Amino acid sequence: MKFKQIAGGLIDRRYFLKKSLIFSVAASIPAYLTAQTPLELERTEWMSEPGLGFSNYGQPSPFEKKTIRWTMANSHAPGNGVSWTPLQDLEGIITPSGLHFERHHNGVPQIDPTAHRLMIHGLVNNPVEFSIENLLQYPKTSQICFIECGGNSNAGWHTNPIQTPVGNFHGMVSCSEWTGIPLKLLLNEAQLQPQAQWLIAEGGDASLMNVSLPIDKATSDCFVALYQNGERIRPENGYPLRLIVPGWEGVLNVKWLQRIHIANQPTMSRNETAKYTELLPSGKAQQFSFIMAAKSIITNPSFGHQLNRFGLYQISGLAWSGRGKITRVEVSADQGQTWLDAELQTPVLPLCFTRFRIPWQWQGQAVVLCSRATDETGYIQPTRTELVAQRGRHGYFHYNAIVNWAISAQGKISHVYD
Amino acid sequence: MKFKQIAGGLIDRRYFLKKSLIFSVAASIPAYLTAQTPLELERTEWMSEPGLGFSNYGQPSPFEKKTIRWTMANSHAPGNGVSWTPLQDLEGIITPSGLHFERHHNGVPQIDPTAHRLMIHGLVNNPVEFSIENLLQYPKTSQICFIECGGNSNAGWHTNPIQTPVGNFHGMVSCSEWTGIPLKLLLNEAQLQPQAQWLIAEGGDASLMNVSLPIDKATSDCFVALYQNGERIRPENGYPLRLIVPGWEGVLNVKWLQRIHIANQPTMSRNETAKYTELLPSGKAQQFSFIMAAKSIITNPSFGHQLNRFGLYQISGLAWSGRGKITRVEVSADQGQTWLDAELQTPVLPLCFTRFRIPWQWQGQAVVLCSRATDETGYIQPTRTELVAQRGRHGYFHYNAIVNWAISAQGKISHVYD
Repeated sequence: MKFKQIAGGLIDRRYFLKKSLIFSVAASIPAYLTAQTPLELERTEWMSEPGLGFSNYGQPSPFEKKTIRWTMANSHAPGNGVSWTPLQDLEGIITPSGLHFERHHNGVPQIDPTAHRLMIHGLVNNPVEFSIENLLQYPKTSQICFIECGGNSNAGWHTNPIQTPVGNFHGMVSCSEWTGIPLKLLLNEAQLQPQAQWLIAEGGDASLMNVSLPIDKATSDCFVALYQNGERIRPENGYPLRLIVPGWEGVLNVKWLQRIHIANQPTMSRNETAKYTELLPSGKAQQFSFIMAAKSIITNPSFGHQLNRFGLYQISGLAWSGRGKITRVEVSADQGQTWLDAELQTPVLPLCFTRFRIPWQWQGQAVVLCSRATDETGYIQPTRTELVAQRGRHGYFHYNAIVNWAISAQGKISHVYD
Repeated sequence: MKFKQIAGGLIDRRYFLKKSLIFSVAASIPAYLTAQTPLELERTEWMSEPGLGFSNYGQPSPFEKKTIRWTMANSHAPGNGVSWTPLQDLEGIITPSGLHFERHHNGVPQIDPTAHRLMIHGLVNNPVEFSIENLLQYPKTSQICFIECGGNSNAGWHTNPIQTPVGNFHGMVSCSEWTGIPLKLLLNEAQLQPQAQWLIAEGGDASLMNVSLPIDKATSDCFVALYQNGERIRPENGYPLRLIVPGWEGVLNVKWLQRIHIANQPTMSRNETAKYTELLPSGKAQQFSFIMAAKSIITNPSFGHQLNRFGLYQISGLAWSGRGKITRVEVSADQGQTWLDAELQTPVLPLCFTRFRIPWQWQGQAVVLCSRATDETGYIQPTRTELVAQRGRHGYFHYNAIVNWAISAQGKISHVYD
């Protein structure tokens, strides 16, 4: 059986899976990968004495201290800034909660859950207030979904391509299993009035961060999460309550949720006027750009990695779309002239990270690797040239262009624009 | 629209989902859940000053210190024992890595990954040894799957029902997204000889824990994991390498994997002779019971919870099967006389936790709640009476009978046998 191989060394995604070809895979892997000596086990210190005891709550290995969130805080405004998920060090689709990105406006409040309340008021017949104990008794639902800051990847708007690891560039996106109460159930407790059009959600941090959300989205798939990846939400992700707005920009997923005001128009808050708005080529600003469009990034190999052997590699990356499922990720090794479909790790879930992988043969050729995602609406991730043609050069938010990694003959990786 | 309601107050699983019925849900919830005062926000301390700064690696809230692994170690054998996942405190299907259960034979080795090797030898033409750096270059795959100790729930064999929280009874099962290299790829590097029938996997802890695995399973869906829930595996779960044997008993999922010996028969190790074997009614022992059969448990409400109001509840629990997907979970409120189908949270994945939920109306009646799982092979979880009839009273491993929670008129919950 022959497998398709295209320019730059990309190979049909089924290549690794066929038993008949495994041997040729082995043969093509350099000798040092199959070194036969020594084959006696050295008795290491950890084989010579009992290990550590049981722990109530586990932590990463001390040898993995490099896998951390990179933080970037504003020294003039306490608690304002970002920490980034190190996407280049991670695999699969789940982001461990300790590495979920953070974006705070005034730091991480340490909320006592017994004192916390969620109020729903405004254009309702029955204003209500829930304690956490109340909320824990409501019906729950779970969803594995990504949250992406509207400002993620904004360095892509720079004139010159930024040279930095994937996580420091695109790491304001993470993916967790969230569990909570359908927002619709709680809104129904408050009995919305007919003129209710917008919901204004407020967090309980010192900035009282608030944003507006159309009522149609609020009553469709939004939920009020109490749990992240099985356990109660971490403080920096909104403990004890976070509004989850699947597929829409991160700022709407209000952390430390304490108030939902029902109104007939948006609130015109700082985060939907001065920030998180789009300056268009016309000079006007677009106030709302809720949905995070389809995007993909090759995380391995990527900037900061060094290719130090010839032979087979598995290219791996992440794709996601705020409009539903990813249906296709294509990979190119010649900067988009020819494309080959990557394998999508199952299950492929809507509004969730999708891991893609594809075999690639590198024999020292200079190539430009890139990926492009297509979602179930048919939307195709644009090139940077296409994105700039559409949105102009004054953008700051919602950068989702194809990302190119140029690999030199020396195996060095740099970020290049198309 | 009328919804089916059966004995003990169980209601059709779609009850919460129908918009037309939300109001009746609200109406049936006691007044204290919708208390209308006070509706002004008190200015708490966390709204009055900036919160904490950004962190490189997040931790649970200090208010959640009760959600921990309960540990049970043998004081006469350092590092021998168990820690249990607190299933009663968790939601969704992902177990956070810090709460994944532990079963160690000689403690948790602190392995330096640069010194660790994986050797494959025995009935092979090309004995091989891999460093972690080598392995990281191989093609990877991901799977969300459960690992369950063969000894999980063994207190079910006691003459009297144990009165303890779900996690301390059934918590030797957890579910993570694991990412690693298909074992078949690595075995092919070693070139198995025709008489290769068994694989003997050894861990790098001080007990050099080893077990035998049939080659057919090893070359089907097993993989050598480097990542758990996105990040590198935690030390207590096998850092830097763990063998994943989806759906089969936990002891086969060898942690700190350092050696795979290929043989034509099992090794007759301690953990497949003195332990992890089944004493049958005939007095003979069954050496191998690899597959973990279908099982389900109601985690909420369960022992340790106290019902303190009348009205609607959502019953929630977990089901899983080592034979594939869960196709059905039924719940009974009259100890198995009548059953109603629970809702299965999507996605339902093979060899993975499945979260089930069902509405239940409690008006102070004494009931016995229980759940039973069916998997895609048609296997139905047995009652304890059926299990004992089949396996006798000398069992220790593979206890998967239906678990009954008796709820008194006072809302107190106890564990009862059928």
